[in-house]
Amino acid sequence: MTEKPRPLRVAMIGAGFMGAAHSQGWRVAPRFFELDATPEMSLLVGRDPARTQAAADRWGWAETSTDWREAIARDDIDVIDIVTPGDSHAEIAIAALDAGKHVMCEKPLANSVAEAQAMAGAAARAEAQGVLSMVGFTYRRVPAATLARDMVAAGRIGQIRQVRAAYLQDWLSDENSPMSWRLQKDRAGSGSLGDIGAHAVDLAQFITGVELESVSGILETLVKERPLAADFSGLSGTAGEGRGEVTVDDLALFTGRFNGGFLGSFEATRFSTGRKNALRIEVAGSKGALSFDLERMNELEFFDATAPAAEQGFKTIIVTEAEHPYMAAWWPAGHTIGYEHGFSHQAHDFVQAVASGTAPSPSFADGLQVQRVLAAVEASAGAGSAWTTV
Amino acid sequence: MTEKPRPLRVAMIGAGFMGAAHSQGWRVAPRFFELDATPEMSLLVGRDPARTQAAADRWGWAETSTDWREAIARDDIDVIDIVTPGDSHAEIAIAALDAGKHVMCEKPLANSVAEAQAMAGAAARAEAQGVLSMVGFTYRRVPAATLARDMVAAGRIGQIRQVRAAYLQDWLSDENSPMSWRLQKDRAGSGSLGDIGAHAVDLAQFITGVELESVSGILETLVKERPLAADFSGLSGTAGEGRGEVTVDDLALFTGRFNGGFLGSFEATRFSTGRKNALRIEVAGSKGALSFDLERMNELEFFDATAPAAEQGFKTIIVTEAEHPYMAAWWPAGHTIGYEHGFSHQAHDFVQAVASGTAPSPSFADGLQVQRVLAAVEASAGAGSAWTTV
Amino acid sequence: MTEKPRPLRVAMIGAGFMGAAHSQGWRVAPRFFELDATPEMSLLVGRDPARTQAAADRWGWAETSTDWREAIARDDIDVIDIVTPGDSHAEIAIAALDAGKHVMCEKPLANSVAEAQAMAGAAARAEAQGVLSMVGFTYRRVPAATLARDMVAAGRIGQIRQVRAAYLQDWLSDENSPMSWRLQKDRAGSGSLGDIGAHAVDLAQFITGVELESVSGILETLVKERPLAADFSGLSGTAGEGRGEVTVDDLALFTGRFNGGFLGSFEATRFSTGRKNALRIEVAGSKGALSFDLERMNELEFFDATAPAAEQGFKTIIVTEAEHPYMAAWWPAGHTIGYEHGFSHQAHDFVQAVASGTAPSPSFADGLQVQRVLAAVEASAGAGSAWTTV
Amino acid sequence: MTEKPRPLRVAMIGAGFMGAAHSQGWRVAPRFFELDATPEMSLLVGRDPARTQAAADRWGWAETSTDWREAIARDDIDVIDIVTPGDSHAEIAIAALDAGKHVMCEKPLANSVAEAQAMAGAAARAEAQGVLSMVGFTYRRVPAATLARDMVAAGRIGQIRQVRAAYLQDWLSDENSPMSWRLQKDRAGSGSLGDIGAHAVDLAQFITGVELESVSGILETLVKERPLAADFSGLSGTAGEGRGEVTVDDLALFTGRFNGGFLGSFEATRFSTGRKNALRIEVAGSKGALSFDLERMNELEFFDATAPAAEQGFKTIIVTEAEHPYMAAWWPAGHTIGYEHGFSHQAHDFVQAVASGTAPSPSFADGLQVQRVLAAVEASAGAGSAWTTV
Repeated sequence: MTEKPRPLRVAMIGAGFMGAAHSQGWRVAPRFFELDATPEMSLLVGRDPARTQAAADRWGWAETSTDWREAIARDDIDVIDIVTPGDSHAEIAIAALDAGKHVMCEKPLANSVAEAQAMAGAAARAEAQGVLSMVGFTYRRVPAATLARDMVAAGRIGQIRQVRAAYLQDWLSDENSPMSWRLQKDRAGSGSLGDIGAHAVDLAQFITGVELESVSGILETLVKERPLAADFSGLSGTAGEGRGEVTVDDLALFTGRFNGGFLGSFEATRFSTGRKNALRIEVAGSKGALSFDLERMNELEFFDATAPAAEQGFKTIIVTEAEHPYMAAWWPAGHTIGYEHGFSHQAHDFVQAVASGTAPSPSFADGLQVQRVLAAVEASAGAGSAWTTV
Repeated sequence: MTEKPRPLRVAMIGAGFMGAAHSQGWRVAPRFFELDATPEMSLLVGRDPARTQAAADRWGWAETSTDWREAIARDDIDVIDIVTPGDSHAEIAIAALDAGKHVMCEKPLANSVAEAQAMAGAAARAEAQGVLSMVGFTYRRVPAATLARDMVAAGRIGQIRQVRAAYLQDWLSDENSPMSWRLQKDRAGSGSLGDIGAHAVDLAQFITGVELESVSGILETLVKERPLAADFSGLSGTAGEGRGEVTVDDLALFTGRFNGGFLGSFEATRFSTGRKNALRIEVAGSKGALSFDLERMNELEFFDATAPAAEQGFKTIIVTEAEHPYMAAWWPAGHTIGYEHGFSHQAHDFVQAVASGTAPSPSFADGLQVQRVLAAVEASAGAGSAWTTV
Repeated sequence: MTEKPRPLRVAMIGAGFMGAAHSQGWRVAPRFFELDATPEMSLLVGRDPARTQAAADRWGWAETSTDWREAIARDDIDVIDIVTPGDSHAEIAIAALDAGKHVMCEKPLANSVAEAQAMAGAAARAEAQGVLSMVGFTYRRVPAATLARDMVAAGRIGQIRQVRAAYLQDWLSDENSPMSWRLQKDRAGSGSLGDIGAHAVDLAQFITGVELESVSGILETLVKERPLAADFSGLSGTAGEGRGEVTVDDLALFTGRFNGGFLGSFEATRFSTGRKNALRIEVAGSKGALSFDLERMNELEFFDATAPAAEQGFKTIIVTEAEHPYMAAWWPAGHTIGYEHGFSHQAHDFVQAVASGTAPSPSFADGLQVQRVLAAVEASAGAGSAWTTV
Repeated sequence: MTEKPRPLRVAMIGAGFMGAAHSQGWRVAPRFFELDATPEMSLLVGRDPARTQAAADRWGWAETSTDWREAIARDDIDVIDIVTPGDSHAEIAIAALDAGKHVMCEKPLANSVAEAQAMAGAAARAEAQGVLSMVGFTYRRVPAATLARDMVAAGRIGQIRQVRAAYLQDWLSDENSPMSWRLQKDRAGSGSLGDIGAHAVDLAQFITGVELESVSGILETLVKERPLAADFSGLSGTAGEGRGEVTVDDLALFTGRFNGGFLGSFEATRFSTGRKNALRIEVAGSKGALSFDLERMNELEFFDATAPAAEQGFKTIIVTEAEHPYMAAWWPAGHTIGYEHGFSHQAHDFVQAVASGTAPSPSFADGLQVQRVLAAVEASAGAGSAWTTV
């Protein structure tokens, strides 16, 4: 057997849907990428012992625990991967960093700017000790999005004129779909704004390479009460009886000014009937434009305004070739990838950063900045859409 | 020869690009539609005698004049068709209506709410005398847009949840494209907002059947000076020398609340590189959604949320069948139409309304309402995007 | 009034659907294009006096007749425009050419190779006398198709590798749609092959600039009997009673070898459910590819294999700019045209050729060549798909 | 730890590109699907010891060997998974089946009908002993393709009228791309026909539920010689020197008649510039149509001809919902999958069949039938495209 690179022992805190995605990332990345360290799926931490064990068996984690502090206390754990709801991110991440564990944390970084600040502070202190951290804006790792960033950076669209960003879903369109923790402000922090608008903000900033400096926006709750599901364990009602109050936004509309001057429009909605998972970013520049839609994640639209006048048009680049970001590791030309591949790319980038001792991106500071944008949108919405500095 | 219906003698005031489009409408409509009166292209009025005569020859107008008052004074003219820049609409239209001429007036109705109010007042007075008027929001007559309106009215998308409207062009993306009257506030009234944003507002209200009640928005001039063209006859510079100041907006971003509560996002831009003429409206409802893009004007996207779960998706209706609005008059199934057909449809609708003595739609009052929306957006933009009642 | 160029007095023979399209071409072309002669809609010839008069009134023809020989005999007619069913093309066209009239003839040129040969002979004789002729493959005049031809000729796709051509309709999918002359071999010559397959053959040859030299194919009649319509005046049944036999093909599938060696696949069908008017041509070459679909006639897809590897993709050129064939005459950038515009382009090209005394294209010889291809397909189909020289 | 179902110990023969795909299938399937047996990646067999060991480490196989006979001889192996080139399929598969091992075999089943017949015979004998086998037409397991099959079977498109099938790639478009075993008849059996045309044939038959009974076609080699790559180990040249002869087809065009009468057109090409991996199937029926393109593998186009006339159109079903085949196991609504997921679905289907003792599909007999179609196309091509019974 050939020699493997040194192991990187991971404990994942949280066993919900995002846990399945992160597990797939840790499992698959070393099978396709040359890594300078080998992630090992050592410990899965969840609240319910039986459910956690079942998840560990399903996903392939070696051990389980019901106490995240145990994971942090163990010497044989190198990485803490946090996929719990946002209200617990700060406590776990700070404790892990302070204990010298590298941390990957799902987005949004936290439920408040204050928490995010504390986390970014802990990350900065830890980094000085060689302990690294990253926030999981995984859509940056969709090859078409990475390619868009690369093309903007290379000047292919010239000077940026304007941005259009939206994340459209429709799973709340049905007014009888039940309550969940994602619809409660105390658990989820915010609704469409934090859950999916955060992705739109991060991706727009990532692709343009410019941050938002001020915003004006509005938040709207379209359906204000929903039936309580039988297995609902939220705080604002008794499971299975009556209806619970939706305390987060269903729809966020806002405009932002980027540093350097250009404007962008933003939309995050769970009521855009027929749009299942449409994270869309279009950036127009003086020499061209780029357009991305997650519903066709293997494609990137590119308009080259320097082409001969009679031959201009949006070009559909099928982002599946060896020349495209991340793609040489996968299949032959023309073979598409799916949602979960972003998690393998994220695992790859995190592992390589940790192995080489360089700070991965996006950092907790980047996550804090997104949090500040979201907070500014909320503040603006509360002040009649007045322009609010990030 | 079979007997023709009674003639409707038209004088058209203005000989620019829109004049060509209106001429094609008057010329072609009677060749495809059964009309209850026959439009006759009697008189073309322009400023320059030679140019006006050349345009009349080209477009097929029987006579020419350089004085619009003459057109109004003549007994043998039934209809005044106004296609001049917005700053002259009010004077001509009011004089024509007061003189008992039916009036078709290009959009936007006027350059200010005050003018539009005066025009709507004149229209109301005239209508009491059987003298009719209409404002030319021609995109309502694109069959796919009319079909969208019909489907919303028939309840095919249920209760409206939200609206996304945009009019995207890119002809100012090149910072060296020259000054024109369209870039001067005193001539054009406004920039992208009034020129193309007006269409987005009208079409969104038309398709939903609901008017905007308040707005919050921002206007932006991306390129503040442009070279003066040799033939530029604007007011703020000497033709062909140096640069002129752009005094209108290049980009308008606003959010609106419709009566009844739902929100819509709006964008009007001349800097969306690669988008040539993309007037897009998407309306999401509790039972479905509709999506239209003028760049593919023969198509309407429809999502039916009541279809079986495994068979849901946006359906591309090719709006070329006899069952679709206006289309039975044209070609066999599957044969597409173009931009100018809207003007034939507009001519048809106007002639039929006048022939039957019923008020055509959209009325001057409708045009005034759009003007009020635009004015509210300007006011909001001037007040830090504060929400402003229409 | 400015001086008009000399008139070109047209008599059109035939008053069906294609008559409406040709009328629109003659009417509109001089309103948008600078022409060196002015077409005049002088005489419409049809079989039924009342119907012909109604059509003339509708379409704007000055006079009518029920005898095409009269049209040819008149001194004040310069052009004979033939839009009758294919079985009468040869007799009318040859008589007209022999009488010194310029002739435009709808496609297919004739119902048999023998007729087409006689017509091409007459055209050659006439041309020696300065009398010109053209066959109406109007889709060559769709700007996107013309642009494709220009780009192939300019070497933008390199050496041609293969061709995929199809004309897909579905109006016979319903097995109860009634009999018509188009379904009878003695009137129509052939079915999908001659009606729409002819367009696919002509357009593929036009865009590539290469002719087919041999073919192998099959013809299929999917529904062999259809109800007789009340107004059916065909030869094989009594109107309104029982069912008539379909004697033409519903579906033609063939492969062809072009001169120079490359292969193309062809399909013509009236049973491709959901495809209303999809004339599709894709040409792949060593340096790129072009793809056209008449259902989106304002678009041309172009793949440039010489672009950087990471930026390759099919580009959707919206063919509405002044730099595109024919388009400078119409509307501003981004404004689309429709089906009938091809007839204005055809009228323009014909008038300009006649005015300058140069032979228009496609010639009757071109029409004959297409006829030979169709005949070769029929022969191959009758011989078990054996390869048959054109 | 919860009890796992009984293990199914797999030995995979072959370590090329398809080996990576099959490995991913075995690895991932048990992580997302509830399986009634647990596949274990026990043994990888390759020719070169070092390369095989490296692949095993990379992909996660427990042991390696360079002798496939050893794999068959071992008692602790339950399944033989064959991913070698086609010329070795028959020998390995027959030996494995005779030894009582369940067999999964990549497509095409074999390089000749004779071999395929022997394999199907062995499979029948084995099945009588409870030993099962399957051929790897993995595209049947793309959820959109499975959904298409289900919808045809449920009568959603009525009686089938015609089929259009194509598999378009362009990786040989460059005439300087080097020789490989896939371009040599003695190794690969055939070129585009067997490699990708086989998929088009299988998928068309799978979706329609009907087999081809006769064909007429042509095969073409567009580039007849190619440079030898430095690492080329083929039989017809010395590695790295001069050029080798391409002895397989680059392009296959054929027409087929399905049992029951309808026709289909087929194309397989590696020269369709710009088309990377476009396996396209369109089936038109009396009540609707379905259209699939592997380049957008998460989508299925459906035309419902029974919808109201004004609302008909092709609907883009995004096949990512829990109601769609295989998708409940993966991610939330709207999250797409990629190429390799088909291999997890294949592994799932195979494991479940073996665990329950029922014959999986497609069987070796199905693979033989596809082989017969390919052989008939070759025979037809050699006989001037004469129609040839399958």
